[in-house]
Amino acid sequence: MSDNGEARFEVLGIGNAIVDVLAQVTEDFLARHGLVKGAMRLIDEVEAHDLYEALGPTIEVSGGSAANTIAGVASFGARSAFIGKVRDDELGAIFAHDIRSVGVHFETAPAGEGPTTARCLVLVTPDGERTMNTWLGASQNLSPDDVDEDLVKDSRITYLEGYLFDPPHAKEAFHKAAEVARAAGRKVALTLSDSFCVDRHREDFLELIRKQVDILFANEAEIRSLYRVSNFNDAMHAVQQDCPLAVLTRSAAGSVIVESGDDVHVIEAFPVKKVVDATGAGDLFAAGFLAGLTQGRPVAECARMGALAAGEIIQQMGARAIRPFHEVARENGF
Amino acid sequence: MSDNGEARFEVLGIGNAIVDVLAQVTEDFLARHGLVKGAMRLIDEVEAHDLYEALGPTIEVSGGSAANTIAGVASFGARSAFIGKVRDDELGAIFAHDIRSVGVHFETAPAGEGPTTARCLVLVTPDGERTMNTWLGASQNLSPDDVDEDLVKDSRITYLEGYLFDPPHAKEAFHKAAEVARAAGRKVALTLSDSFCVDRHREDFLELIRKQVDILFANEAEIRSLYRVSNFNDAMHAVQQDCPLAVLTRSAAGSVIVESGDDVHVIEAFPVKKVVDATGAGDLFAAGFLAGLTQGRPVAECARMGALAAGEIIQQMGARAIRPFHEVARENGF
Repeated sequence: MSDNGEARFEVLGIGNAIVDVLAQVTEDFLARHGLVKGAMRLIDEVEAHDLYEALGPTIEVSGGSAANTIAGVASFGARSAFIGKVRDDELGAIFAHDIRSVGVHFETAPAGEGPTTARCLVLVTPDGERTMNTWLGASQNLSPDDVDEDLVKDSRITYLEGYLFDPPHAKEAFHKAAEVARAAGRKVALTLSDSFCVDRHREDFLELIRKQVDILFANEAEIRSLYRVSNFNDAMHAVQQDCPLAVLTRSAAGSVIVESGDDVHVIEAFPVKKVVDATGAGDLFAAGFLAGLTQGRPVAECARMGALAAGEIIQQMGARAIRPFHEVARENGF
Repeated sequence: MSDNGEARFEVLGIGNAIVDVLAQVTEDFLARHGLVKGAMRLIDEVEAHDLYEALGPTIEVSGGSAANTIAGVASFGARSAFIGKVRDDELGAIFAHDIRSVGVHFETAPAGEGPTTARCLVLVTPDGERTMNTWLGASQNLSPDDVDEDLVKDSRITYLEGYLFDPPHAKEAFHKAAEVARAAGRKVALTLSDSFCVDRHREDFLELIRKQVDILFANEAEIRSLYRVSNFNDAMHAVQQDCPLAVLTRSAAGSVIVESGDDVHVIEAFPVKKVVDATGAGDLFAAGFLAGLTQGRPVAECARMGALAAGEIIQQMGARAIRPFHEVARENGF
């Protein structure tokens, strides 16, 4: 199986397998609980319980950063697969149903014991911004054994979620996947996930990016955190030295695609009437971009597909598309 | 404790305790699966599994007809309580959280064994109409023992869901609650739930309405089914003989409130931009109406509050209000 050989899957994602629990909250609620708006933080089971008790009515939707991306890639019509750990419980069954229902190959064995399926308490403020509180549950027990080497070898791109660096076993699984993919001549993509996550693992991320990453996804806060610089332009020039292709998203300010060599593309955000829930904007940008790559499109066009998917997802609750993206793409001339 | 005495709760609801599983489907999907659009049907566990497998990505939201109504009543600010049976599983915990989170007293002991918490596969077509497929699970084991007599005696109105007539034990619980409420000089309200449900239990419903029901809620199809008449006007006049107060809803055509004696009130529907998901329209109409009654408003005004709540709920996914109704009511001059 070579770089240019046939592959069973276009994109394989590896990440935390999480069910999102969405609730509307006020700004005041965030302040009272000392929460930093827009960030993701890890919480333990006790805090997850206490915070859940403090919330109003909730909606449960499958989530997980790389899982959202892969569901999006599949929704665009690309053959895709996912590796992530749930428990054999009800939320685990919901997660598995939802990702398979859009055609994603998902066969990671659920844990038969230990913590329950991971959940993320997503607090949505009236401005549509989301603040995430994640109890990793079964997800943290993803281990190298769960990484099916044949699956990695048989996927053109292996897409890895930075959040996997938080649980120690998952980090090992992450490294194994990257090594197997590279050895098979496949591409490795990485999303930095969150600026605080970058802060926790900066040196490891930099080493990985310089040695093994072909495509890097990051938003402005993440890429600035990675290089500890105060402006976007410096971060952009730094990443150009370290990685062949960097996809940098800037919310309403659009995105910048940086190729090693000199190519820089500045792409507009997709116009949006009202932000209902920002959950999944970055994940779905990556989905559109990757789907474009699998179709052999130029990177600027891939970025426009990413912008389209991100714009679509923030106009609904949750990070899984209600309408298939291949329809949305067709309607928008892709 | 007398008719006019103090009561701990304004409204107590008794009904199936269900988590809704919402999915978007095409008209063609309904046709292929032989489903009657807009209806509710009961399915067994095997069919629930098979239909779920055939669905695309889903959203999970607490549901149940009377439970939706009671959550709505509480969201309007009225003291309320609910009796219904879940299992001690994850979906049961979600149901309990969501109803308590709006201030509803809910202390029915969850089942420690037997079927899992009930779920309803709600198929939403592009026109916003919903078609429901219910696996009753733990809900069907609601028994007379679960009906706390003191709770019934201490509630001004006991609101009963017609769907409870389907599971035999629940039907006994239903009758017990109605008898205890009447004996304590409290009011009994009933919703007919569904025209097919009426068809299954017509004689029992008629007997109950004539003997024990103070307030009847029904939509046009249900009230016509109850009296086996082909037009609304005949049904309206029939119910006027049988029940002191009937609240008849007609979707976009508004509602008609019929009091025994001569009073008939014809109330407009609330203007709605776009129907996103019709789930819960009837349940929330009842919520607004009951909330109005607890505030001592005239029935025509109660119906306008019902129309407001119904109009609000069909512009979002799921039958639990994202925004508190007491705010929505205030903004609309109630």
